Amino acid sequence: MSRKIRMGMVGGGRGAFIGQVHRIAAALDGQIELVCGAFSSNPEKSRLSGLDFFLEPDRIYGSFDEMFEKENQLGPDKRMDLVSIVTPNHMHYEPAAKAIQNGFHVICDKPLSFNLEEAYALNKIVNNSNQIFALTHNYTGYPMVKQARQMIKHGEIGKVRKVVVEYPQGWLSTLLEETDQKQASWRTDPSKSGIAGAMGDIGTHAENLAEYITGLKIEALCADISTLVEGRRLDDDGNILLRFSNGARGILYASQISAGEENALSIRVYGEHAGLEWHQMSPNSLKVKWLNKPMQILRTGVGDLYPEAEAHARIPAGHPEGYLEAFANIYRNVAHCIRARIEGYQVDPIFDDFPKIEDGVRGMEFIYKAIESGNSEQKWIKMK
Amino acid sequence: MSRKIRMGMVGGGRGAFIGQVHRIAAALDGQIELVCGAFSSNPEKSRLSGLDFFLEPDRIYGSFDEMFEKENQLGPDKRMDLVSIVTPNHMHYEPAAKAIQNGFHVICDKPLSFNLEEAYALNKIVNNSNQIFALTHNYTGYPMVKQARQMIKHGEIGKVRKVVVEYPQGWLSTLLEETDQKQASWRTDPSKSGIAGAMGDIGTHAENLAEYITGLKIEALCADISTLVEGRRLDDDGNILLRFSNGARGILYASQISAGEENALSIRVYGEHAGLEWHQMSPNSLKVKWLNKPMQILRTGVGDLYPEAEAHARIPAGHPEGYLEAFANIYRNVAHCIRARIEGYQVDPIFDDFPKIEDGVRGMEFIYKAIESGNSEQKWIKMK
Amino acid sequence: MSRKIRMGMVGGGRGAFIGQVHRIAAALDGQIELVCGAFSSNPEKSRLSGLDFFLEPDRIYGSFDEMFEKENQLGPDKRMDLVSIVTPNHMHYEPAAKAIQNGFHVICDKPLSFNLEEAYALNKIVNNSNQIFALTHNYTGYPMVKQARQMIKHGEIGKVRKVVVEYPQGWLSTLLEETDQKQASWRTDPSKSGIAGAMGDIGTHAENLAEYITGLKIEALCADISTLVEGRRLDDDGNILLRFSNGARGILYASQISAGEENALSIRVYGEHAGLEWHQMSPNSLKVKWLNKPMQILRTGVGDLYPEAEAHARIPAGHPEGYLEAFANIYRNVAHCIRARIEGYQVDPIFDDFPKIEDGVRGMEFIYKAIESGNSEQKWIKMK
Amino acid sequence: MSRKIRMGMVGGGRGAFIGQVHRIAAALDGQIELVCGAFSSNPEKSRLSGLDFFLEPDRIYGSFDEMFEKENQLGPDKRMDLVSIVTPNHMHYEPAAKAIQNGFHVICDKPLSFNLEEAYALNKIVNNSNQIFALTHNYTGYPMVKQARQMIKHGEIGKVRKVVVEYPQGWLSTLLEETDQKQASWRTDPSKSGIAGAMGDIGTHAENLAEYITGLKIEALCADISTLVEGRRLDDDGNILLRFSNGARGILYASQISAGEENALSIRVYGEHAGLEWHQMSPNSLKVKWLNKPMQILRTGVGDLYPEAEAHARIPAGHPEGYLEAFANIYRNVAHCIRARIEGYQVDPIFDDFPKIEDGVRGMEFIYKAIESGNSEQKWIKMK
Repeated sequence: MSRKIRMGMVGGGRGAFIGQVHRIAAALDGQIELVCGAFSSNPEKSRLSGLDFFLEPDRIYGSFDEMFEKENQLGPDKRMDLVSIVTPNHMHYEPAAKAIQNGFHVICDKPLSFNLEEAYALNKIVNNSNQIFALTHNYTGYPMVKQARQMIKHGEIGKVRKVVVEYPQGWLSTLLEETDQKQASWRTDPSKSGIAGAMGDIGTHAENLAEYITGLKIEALCADISTLVEGRRLDDDGNILLRFSNGARGILYASQISAGEENALSIRVYGEHAGLEWHQMSPNSLKVKWLNKPMQILRTGVGDLYPEAEAHARIPAGHPEGYLEAFANIYRNVAHCIRARIEGYQVDPIFDDFPKIEDGVRGMEFIYKAIESGNSEQKWIKMK
Repeated sequence: MSRKIRMGMVGGGRGAFIGQVHRIAAALDGQIELVCGAFSSNPEKSRLSGLDFFLEPDRIYGSFDEMFEKENQLGPDKRMDLVSIVTPNHMHYEPAAKAIQNGFHVICDKPLSFNLEEAYALNKIVNNSNQIFALTHNYTGYPMVKQARQMIKHGEIGKVRKVVVEYPQGWLSTLLEETDQKQASWRTDPSKSGIAGAMGDIGTHAENLAEYITGLKIEALCADISTLVEGRRLDDDGNILLRFSNGARGILYASQISAGEENALSIRVYGEHAGLEWHQMSPNSLKVKWLNKPMQILRTGVGDLYPEAEAHARIPAGHPEGYLEAFANIYRNVAHCIRARIEGYQVDPIFDDFPKIEDGVRGMEFIYKAIESGNSEQKWIKMK
Repeated sequence: MSRKIRMGMVGGGRGAFIGQVHRIAAALDGQIELVCGAFSSNPEKSRLSGLDFFLEPDRIYGSFDEMFEKENQLGPDKRMDLVSIVTPNHMHYEPAAKAIQNGFHVICDKPLSFNLEEAYALNKIVNNSNQIFALTHNYTGYPMVKQARQMIKHGEIGKVRKVVVEYPQGWLSTLLEETDQKQASWRTDPSKSGIAGAMGDIGTHAENLAEYITGLKIEALCADISTLVEGRRLDDDGNILLRFSNGARGILYASQISAGEENALSIRVYGEHAGLEWHQMSPNSLKVKWLNKPMQILRTGVGDLYPEAEAHARIPAGHPEGYLEAFANIYRNVAHCIRARIEGYQVDPIFDDFPKIEDGVRGMEFIYKAIESGNSEQKWIKMK
Repeated sequence: MSRKIRMGMVGGGRGAFIGQVHRIAAALDGQIELVCGAFSSNPEKSRLSGLDFFLEPDRIYGSFDEMFEKENQLGPDKRMDLVSIVTPNHMHYEPAAKAIQNGFHVICDKPLSFNLEEAYALNKIVNNSNQIFALTHNYTGYPMVKQARQMIKHGEIGKVRKVVVEYPQGWLSTLLEETDQKQASWRTDPSKSGIAGAMGDIGTHAENLAEYITGLKIEALCADISTLVEGRRLDDDGNILLRFSNGARGILYASQISAGEENALSIRVYGEHAGLEWHQMSPNSLKVKWLNKPMQILRTGVGDLYPEAEAHARIPAGHPEGYLEAFANIYRNVAHCIRARIEGYQVDPIFDDFPKIEDGVRGMEFIYKAIESGNSEQKWIKMK
């Protein structure tokens, strides 16, 4: 008899933004149950948070070390299967590595790690294990992103010539980190965020989205990375020229000082026969701009989409699904893969589709190359 | 110590659309746990469905009668608190009435009942009980709908003069009920749906939305109710002139033969100083069209919204929430109200905001008046 | 050798809104030359206006009677061919009738006349003449309106089932007629506008657009006509249920108190296979919402449109044409028709496409039936 | 007594796209009269074209040299005032220089000239003359572009930090120049277009728009200039990083291989307090995205715009003006300036607002720097 996948959480205590997102994403499809957590490095805060989530008191832990140890002492009918890591960047590596080493599957927030060395080390650990490692580049969880990827893969737009991916936000237009704002504070702090600010926080999402949709690799980049708000310690705006593996050209930009923008990730991909356009803030539409033919607007739930797209939508056309549902697609797919292992069947490849350790490494390499280029007078910096 | 609210479900077995929506809505915020259900009148189908949802086998019931009886035999630390009723219209009354009479709170799908008599009877039962009864007119769960309501309540647009509420769908443009399509089949069957098709299925949503946002009552209506697909047994299109209690004029239309429309519920309300416009398919925006001043687009998460709106959004601006989140707002609010009773505190009035039995009765009266008007040569039919 | 068509104007002096529109529309395509005018009943104002337009002083007239007389004394190589009538409604009939009787072609602003009797009389006069009479229901001049008409005519959307045409404006949300506002003043004055306000000013545009696009006739209507701004002497809001000749249902509404709306004429037509949607404020797009297939957005200049649409656009895709160009299409088509008569050839039927006297009569009948229905307790009023 | 400004045209014969645009733009406001032209280097084609435009046969010339000579022999009451030059790039300099030297005002299509030397030479000629020289960077003629410029000038969005200007088109996605397509043919021919394709044809529009709106100068650029359609002789895609004089960062891209794009010029400017966004294809709207406050959509004709914006719109809100009207704004402003000289008064500075010779020189410098950067391994190339 099947059972829910059991999940523990690292980080995400009271007041955390992304922790709540992960919990909703995990709960949404009824496949995963939050059973334990080490929600804060402050044990009392962890305890209170765990009570908020209605956990059994003895499975609310004061540290992830304690959690791994105690959970491993539980029987296989009770022990968590999966660890969700929702801490700031500098606290990804250690719990992730230990979770894997303790035999747990991992879903980790992005970017993968504090620095590139950690990324390579974690890559090795994951590859030497049998566990699943997923990274929440959640935007690739949207059905219409999957539709776009399949359309390109199946040649519908011809050879890709041009990619424009942009991720403007405005919330760091002021020196918000000097107020009490927790999100701003760690994201602009090099000791917590790493070498990059906007590039690491959202630039990697853009990079991941562009490579996922096009199936191409960025081969070289030329970046102008800036800190436009005085007093800030990390970049808050970056504009990058891209060259892709097949000769396509591109632009990627990520900005947190684009005043008045919310979370306006979008991508346009132009091939020989058509252009595709997708906006995260209107995620259920995919514009297909045909050369010399009327534009189509593909919509979740309307007509024949690729099975990969259809499998990632839940409700009929016109009933908008959003950010949480896309996020939940990663959790649900991971749950399916874990269940397949537990129950010993082969998972449908359509569900074995979520960002993995190699996407995380790629993202860290992108961050490092972008920052290197920003500091360089050399025009083009190669990505391998 | 707090605990999750425990829920049982009536209907919503394998393949049901709205059952899945209710389960997601209940699970999303981590406040409610599905513990039991009578998912089908076919006991084997009920059992298999319950296993899909990872329920304990002995809490998967063959009928709601059995569920009410067995659950009542369980101790207060195990027994369900709440019943979710997601059956077709003709099977709302009996389980709802019995659930209330057995001491359970109820969340019921809309419209309230198969006919008006049942609505009045249920109203009496609920009013004589101490239980909570909620109806899933889910569209009023959207944050920007609540924002619109508050703006009007606080006089921002002045006296309301004109209301245009429309609900076009296209999915019944063909005689879909003659195929295997389960949703189409019962909705167009007078023995399951009641006296109305489109008017009952979606017209009531439009009526509920208009009265909720404006705070006004429809006082008279003049309807042209049609069946435009040959062979259909209930209405599939209705156009209605409205007169509101304060003298405002209006139009309400609901259609399931508007080919190519998805689920395009929208409302425009014009007052002396401004017009408000909201579209369910872009639910995080509310247009405010000021007279002789630039239009504003209010967005969830941006600037100072009314607390009633802010309390019903979860994630920052630009991270789209949708249909499931709005639906979940009803479940979460009901959960808060039940918890307040269990734990003996006063619930924040902001959460005591969901459609109730009187909204359900109102909706049934609307359906009856609309159909009556459609059959009448008299121009105006009064709503009381 | 060809020459420009020579035009005189009645009304449209300094400060007039619609006179300027007509002059631009006439000039835009270089087919018509303004040669004379009686721009105001005040001869000095007429003279100053004529000088603004760089006319020869001796062809600036103090009255239309004088204009008709003097122009007729000029030789055929100088005399005007065409009279443009841009006065308020109560001053359409006399100059129009006299222009026709004096052998001039006429382009007249809408609605056709002050009352229905004038409409019928003018109809007789025009039909007994050999002159061209055009009415500036300018919205049917848009290329995508013509595309929609052709798509329906060629059966692309199947039998029409539902029509929603709406024309909300907000500019009369206050008692603007009590200020100096000239446009508001005559439009709300029964002695100048006729029996209707909003219904005559913009309701007729909606009626004309619906019948033009669908090729159907309104057979019966049921109207709620209101004056929502206290102190106003004519209707400023009207909501109408429609029944069309083929059994289709519809809604028409026209409002001048929809605060914050600009000039938001739009139409949606639903057939068995698709819905069409067009918005005057984004006139170069036509949405085609296919049943169970992706929506298309047809655009002027993109792909293969019907020749009737292509002939009414001037510049490539993405170079927006607007209100003035649509208006100019009427003038250009009339010019082509006049030139064909002068030069003795058969005009391409594509250009013999502009609103004519029968459209004007139809519009007046619509106004009268709408107002009659608004005053009646009878549900349905027949249009013949 | 005032008279119309008299215009001659160089180029723009039968079948030319931009010639028709210039003629409509000149005619639209009734301020300018086309009196003569040398429409083609083929005298017979010039003659036939002139007859199409209803010109007097003896003022249809076989060459611009003939036109300048013959027109100068006419009296001041007949002679043209203004020459409109609408030839391909390689034929701008000679007629423009000679027109100025013969005492005529000039309106010239962009870019200014075939090469940079011609630009500098023409600059000298114009500066040494008393004539007006206008360049049709028509996109700055839109009212909402002027509104944006004024808002920035008046500090409404604070210091500008980021500019994103893009100009995607798709019409050259195939090797259209190998078909009969005249527009494609000369634009991709180095002997007619100059050193640049897309950069010269539309990149300069983007550059001009960005500098006009922000009031800033591009100080350095880093370009990736490509020819993505095999066999093409000039660039068809360019992506450029920008640094502005005040430290602002930017992106400019121009592409003619963005399949399915029409003429999608747009600009976003982010300041400390707000972002502005304008799209050429929806030109009557200007989005103002305030930091932490609701977004506004400014519209032509609604509320209080800057006088500079209001002076460049003709008709009320909701009556869309488009490309031709913006183009006509340049012609009308030039006509006002010429008339002021003829009649000896001071022109209102609001009308002395159109692109001039220095904008043309700037555009040519931009083209040269962009192409230079595209060919360079040096990251940043300075603009002076």
